[in-house]
Amino acid sequence: MIIIQLNNRQLKIIDIVKESEPITSECIAAKLNVTRATLRSDLAILTMTGVLDARPKVGYFYSGIDKVNLLGDKIKNKTVADIMSMPIMVTQDTSVYDTIVNIFLSDVGSVFIIDDEKELCGIVSRKDLLKATIGGGDINKIPVGMIMTRTPNVVTVTSEDTVVLAAKRIIEHEVDSIPVVEEVKRDNTIINKVVGRISKTNITKLFLEIADN
Amino acid sequence: MIIIQLNNRQLKIIDIVKESEPITSECIAAKLNVTRATLRSDLAILTMTGVLDARPKVGYFYSGIDKVNLLGDKIKNKTVADIMSMPIMVTQDTSVYDTIVNIFLSDVGSVFIIDDEKELCGIVSRKDLLKATIGGGDINKIPVGMIMTRTPNVVTVTSEDTVVLAAKRIIEHEVDSIPVVEEVKRDNTIINKVVGRISKTNITKLFLEIADN
Repeated sequence: MIIIQLNNRQLKIIDIVKESEPITSECIAAKLNVTRATLRSDLAILTMTGVLDARPKVGYFYSGIDKVNLLGDKIKNKTVADIMSMPIMVTQDTSVYDTIVNIFLSDVGSVFIIDDEKELCGIVSRKDLLKATIGGGDINKIPVGMIMTRTPNVVTVTSEDTVVLAAKRIIEHEVDSIPVVEEVKRDNTIINKVVGRISKTNITKLFLEIADN
Repeated sequence: MIIIQLNNRQLKIIDIVKESEPITSECIAAKLNVTRATLRSDLAILTMTGVLDARPKVGYFYSGIDKVNLLGDKIKNKTVADIMSMPIMVTQDTSVYDTIVNIFLSDVGSVFIIDDEKELCGIVSRKDLLKATIGGGDINKIPVGMIMTRTPNVVTVTSEDTVVLAAKRIIEHEVDSIPVVEEVKRDNTIINKVVGRISKTNITKLFLEIADN
């Protein structure tokens, strides 16, 4: 397998075929003001890659660039919205013990801490919870708000961000997952409402999906 | 970007150029027993993709298929050895408390449990350790061997396995990381010696590396 970048003339040919399919190579050449011979290798590439379909004595059809395996674009253009999971959230006053139960039931690596209107206040990971349990206090009485990492020290993404950006933040900040937030207006201020979760698991699944295609 | 699969004639052309570079299209056509016109689109594809380099009045050179961005192959052919990390290991008699300290110091999600000759006996995750700490026992006295997941219930890979296989196992078995093992002979039996660790972090980093190219 080899990857190529289409040149401008090839992109123009695609537009012409899209508009006037079926169209013969003579007609395409006339529209571009070049000879048929000039187009031969461009048309060969476009049919080999499956972007165009050639039928003898009829002409070229557009089969759709979307059907072509655009692997590079597939990786670069995937957004957080495409692969994010449901967030697991508790409020600040939840006990460390109840938060641990929650993390077991939902089988996630991190829980997001929110206020009553779903505004992001912080995050706790399994590691934070493990630290709290060996700390010696009564985990039934300690509220999770006391041990969480607080905003604005929590790294976030929006659902329109790319998966590549999310992966970068996860690796740079050495976390398992990050909250996906959306800015909403509350009274006269803008707050970050939690709408999702993106984790290394989501990215590993995407890696597999890309490899399987 | 578009991905194409080279056809047999294109692969033959690559072999011919490799052997007799620089070589003109006339000579290639003669060797393949076809006309120059027949080869035109194949040569266009091979130069566009950067596999061949064409110099006017000299002929075609082989620039190396390795230099071409073989994205699909890059994903599929990566082996565990290419991206694995150092394993973090303790013996079965280590206390749960000391194992937790170990997990904090090395900042990993799972610790592998081994015997004196590095044979894999089991694995414990942050989740297992968290469960043990809220269980009520004295974690300074409970040996990690008591709470670990035991072989043969531990999923493993070898360093020659592909990253795709490792990712599949991580997702299917819902674990954060898996031990990389190597079969070695001890006395008259074959044992699995731990030689590495592959995690969702390694795979997320690989995803980023591929996206950045």
